[in-house]
This record gives sequence, C-alpha cells and structure tokens, in this order.
Amino acid sequence: MSPTAADIFAPLPAIESFLDTWLTSLPDDRPLALREAMRYSAIGAGKRLRPILAWHACTAAAGTGPDTGKASLLAGAAIELVHCFSLIHDDLPALDNDDLRRGKPTLHKHTSEAMAILAGDQLLTDAFLLLTTHPHPISANTRLELLRELSHATSAMISGQIYDTLGGTPDNLSPLDRVQLVHNNKTGALIRAACRMGALCAPSPSPQTLEAITTYARAIGLMFQVVDDLIDVTQTAETAGKRTNKDAQAGKLTYPSVLGIEGTRQEVTRLHAAAINALTPLHTNAEALRAIADFLATRTK
Amino acid sequence: MSPTAADIFAPLPAIESFLDTWLTSLPDDRPLALREAMRYSAIGAGKRLRPILAWHACTAAAGTGPDTGKASLLAGAAIELVHCFSLIHDDLPALDNDDLRRGKPTLHKHTSEAMAILAGDQLLTDAFLLLTTHPHPISANTRLELLRELSHATSAMISGQIYDTLGGTPDNLSPLDRVQLVHNNKTGALIRAACRMGALCAPSPSPQTLEAITTYARAIGLMFQVVDDLIDVTQTAETAGKRTNKDAQAGKLTYPSVLGIEGTRQEVTRLHAAAINALTPLHTNAEALRAIADFLATRTK
Repeated sequence: MSPTAADIFAPLPAIESFLDTWLTSLPDDRPLALREAMRYSAIGAGKRLRPILAWHACTAAAGTGPDTGKASLLAGAAIELVHCFSLIHDDLPALDNDDLRRGKPTLHKHTSEAMAILAGDQLLTDAFLLLTTHPHPISANTRLELLRELSHATSAMISGQIYDTLGGTPDNLSPLDRVQLVHNNKTGALIRAACRMGALCAPSPSPQTLEAITTYARAIGLMFQVVDDLIDVTQTAETAGKRTNKDAQAGKLTYPSVLGIEGTRQEVTRLHAAAINALTPLHTNAEALRAIADFLATRTK
Repeated sequence: MSPTAADIFAPLPAIESFLDTWLTSLPDDRPLALREAMRYSAIGAGKRLRPILAWHACTAAAGTGPDTGKASLLAGAAIELVHCFSLIHDDLPALDNDDLRRGKPTLHKHTSEAMAILAGDQLLTDAFLLLTTHPHPISANTRLELLRELSHATSAMISGQIYDTLGGTPDNLSPLDRVQLVHNNKTGALIRAACRMGALCAPSPSPQTLEAITTYARAIGLMFQVVDDLIDVTQTAETAGKRTNKDAQAGKLTYPSVLGIEGTRQEVTRLHAAAINALTPLHTNAEALRAIADFLATRTK
C-alpha cells in the first residue's frame, strides 16, 4: 500500500521534540527576549517539510525499517533553523515587508526589527552550533559533510533572496531561465540540502543512491516554488495562511508571469514526473519520497 | 628586544592576502552586487585585530619561528568574516543606525538596507563555509573544534548585541556587572575566540597553554571595549574615524558612565596587568601577545 499523508508526516513528533529539546537546552545566559523570539519563530509552526524530507531521504538511502530516519534528525533540525532564519529576514520591511507568516504576525511585527534581525542571525548561527556540538551519534567526517552541504545551500539561498528582492540576474538569461535561477537558489537549495543531508546520515550511502536522491531533490525543490507561485495567484490569503498575490504586486518574476497559469501547471507535471523517475533505482525504499512528490505537486497552501 | 607595533602587524599582508584570495575564489554564480558588497565591507579596511591575535596566539602556543602563525590563517579569516558581518548588522537603522564606519559610508548607506542585511548573512555563512571547505592543512577534528569555538562566540556576540541595543540584562545585576556582561559578550567573545582558535591551530597545545591564552584573551577582550568606551567620550570623530559620543547619546551603559573617566582608566590598567600576568607560563613565546596588550591599552582610535 502506498504511503498516505499521515505516513509522510509520521516523523513530525520526533522532529518537533528534537527541535524543542535543543532550543530548551540552549544556555540560559542568552537574553530572555531572544529565547522567546526564537521559540516564537521556530516552534509549533510550519510544515517541517525540510526535516521530513531529510528523514525520508535517510530511510530511502538506508533501506531498512521505519525508524531509520532518526539518524537524520540532527540534519533536519539544522536545515529547519536555517529555514526559520531565512523567513524572518525575508519578512523584514527592507525586504518583503510582510506582516503575516504562518497565520500570525511576523517576528518584527511581534517584537521589533532589531530583534528580528538578531534572532535571525542567532538561528543561522545555531544551525552550525547544532551540527557542530550536538551529541548525536554521527562521525566527525559526516558532521563536516553536513556542514559543507548546509553552508553551500545557505549561500545559494541568500543569493536567491538577493536575485528575488534586488534583481541582478545575468542579462543574457531568458525570463524563464531567470525565474528558474531565482527559484533554484531561493527555495530549491535548502530542499536539495535537506534530501542530500538526510541521505548522508544513512550508513555509507552509495554514489548512485546520492545521485538519485539529488536528482529527485532538484526536481521537487524547483517544483515547490513553482507551486508556491501558483498558490500566490490562485488562492485567497485565508486558504494560504499568508498574504497572496504579493509577487505580482511587487513586480517579481514568477512562473505564472512567464508561462501563464496553464503553462505553469504543465511545468509542475513535468517536474513531478522527473522526481518520480529519478527514484526508480531506489525501488520500494523511496515510497515515502514518491508520496511527498505527489503531495507537493497538489498542495493548495 | 620587545616586539614593536611593526612586529605585531607583520602578519597583516599574509592575512589580507588569505582573505582576498578566498573572497575572489568564491563561486561567480553569486550576484555581482553581493560580491561587491562583501568586498566593500571585508577588504582593505579594519585593523584585522582578531586575525592578528589568532596568528600570535598560535605562535605563543606553538613556540617556534615567526611564521608558525600561518597555521592560524584559516581561523583568523573566519573570525574576521564574522566580525565584518556583525559590524554591518550593528550599523543598520534598526540597530545603531550608523552612517560612518572605518571612515567611509556604512554598507546600508553605500548600497541598501536589504543588501546590508543579506550581505551580512552571507559573510556569517561564509565564515562557516570557509572553516568547513577551505583546503588548509588542518585535521577534521581541529576543524570541528574551530567551528565549535566560532559558533559559541558568535552566539555570545549576538546576545551582547541584544543586551546593548535592546536591554534585558538580568535585574539582579549591578550597573558594573551589567556593562561587563554586555562588553564580555558583544566584543569579548570574538576576541577570546580569536586567541583560542589561533592556539588550537598550533600542534597539540597543552591544556595549561590554552588556559593561559584564554585568561589573557578574557582580559584583553573586555579591555578592548572599555578602551572603546573611553575613546567614545574623549576623542573627536576625526581622530577615531567614526561617530563618537554616540553611546551617551543613545543612553547606553558604558564604563565611563558607571565608573567615571578616571575609574575607567584604572580598570584598563587592571585588565592590562591581568593579561600580562596570565602569559607568565608562556615565557618568551608570548612576547607578541604582550605587545598587543600594551598596544590595546594605549590606543586612541
């Protein structure tokens, strides 16, 4: 039987608990207001898509029982901290100037711009602190591999953010190449890292397995943002839980603005197929990853 | 013969060249404007105090020739990137709102707030990317030790920034303890990390050596900011190369506001003596570190 949405999200309690325990264990010489700001942004909100992907990519690479993914908790939590940091800075008045995130006020509205800048900085730093210091059963070399993946992916994400907010994509690119460059960096990089880092947490994943998971991750990473573009133009803020139609208002390049809504839907179909095809060598180990591709292709928020 | 200021700063060309080479070697798929913003903030400006400290702490711990410090170039460059990031975010309108830094417009005045936020984020990320990926001859375990030091120190620095900008130091602290807490975190942490990380780059530093260098670093780290407070109230902007008297204007807690100018000068003398005393076990290996303590106690900008 194919995995259901409930199966996909079965690791959620373990992921939430790992993140919560880590944030609670942080030294209490940090300012109280900082600790509160970090919890406000990082706990009890969001789909945890990236840790979920890390978990199932780990299972796909390890090829054993349902709890194999546990080895990836450290990687998933680190990526989630980077993701939280990126949302906080992205929402700032100088960038996207958003008041609403995950159905509640953005951090700078809830606290202050200064706190949002600094709490974001701390969440980014904590991702590296976590990977470096957490007593998770993982070798020094794997830690360094994870740190390498995460620092490359975070860099790509920041570049994507700059292209998206400030422009500057190379002049010789077509509009489609341009929006693909933005999306691959801004959203795709962390999703790719989530899958690759999860797989790296499996015991000795083969190059073929890593390659299959990377190809899958590249397809769903881009697809995720293409679907986001669709949601932005087709859903109400109430359904999506955040302000919609904002990209068009901000004059940003999106898939619907380049390919139209129907062309964008076809692109989703193409990327979904590419993701599923990539997983063929992994047989039944990759069932959850396939179910996630289905889920992400059809989500409405 | 005791080292002169020229001896202290002799490693500067090696440090500048290491940083410059690294920034030039970064992948050119980053936005051009980002690469320019990073160079604007990170190249050809600043005293490079932290890499200089890392270099001489490495020499003090290794106890051999004048080029021993080269092993610390990686550590020093990583700390300098974090330092640059912290200055950029600190200068933002939502924080200290400074227009002038190192005698030229701050990055958000030179580019935009959005770029300053994101270039700061990238410099922070690059510190970890550098420590993780640079082909410097250094073991995986030492890399992880350096990453641990740097992520702890960066966290302390951010907490110091929050205490300094937004308040929130614990209620039961005296004004002196309060300003010491801010300074130890905001400025002291990276200076401590510079010395410790430099020493960790020496081959197998003994626990006694590390302890001596840490005690020294704690004293000069605090002293550095106490002297900064003195400069802020006693020097003109022209001499200091940045806006002065700004702490009093911002109502910030400083050493002169708590101890008076004479009391603050005595505190500098006390911290200088503590730094020098700590180095006794290192004999002549620590001559450059002693000279740096002298230099930092008497600087006027």
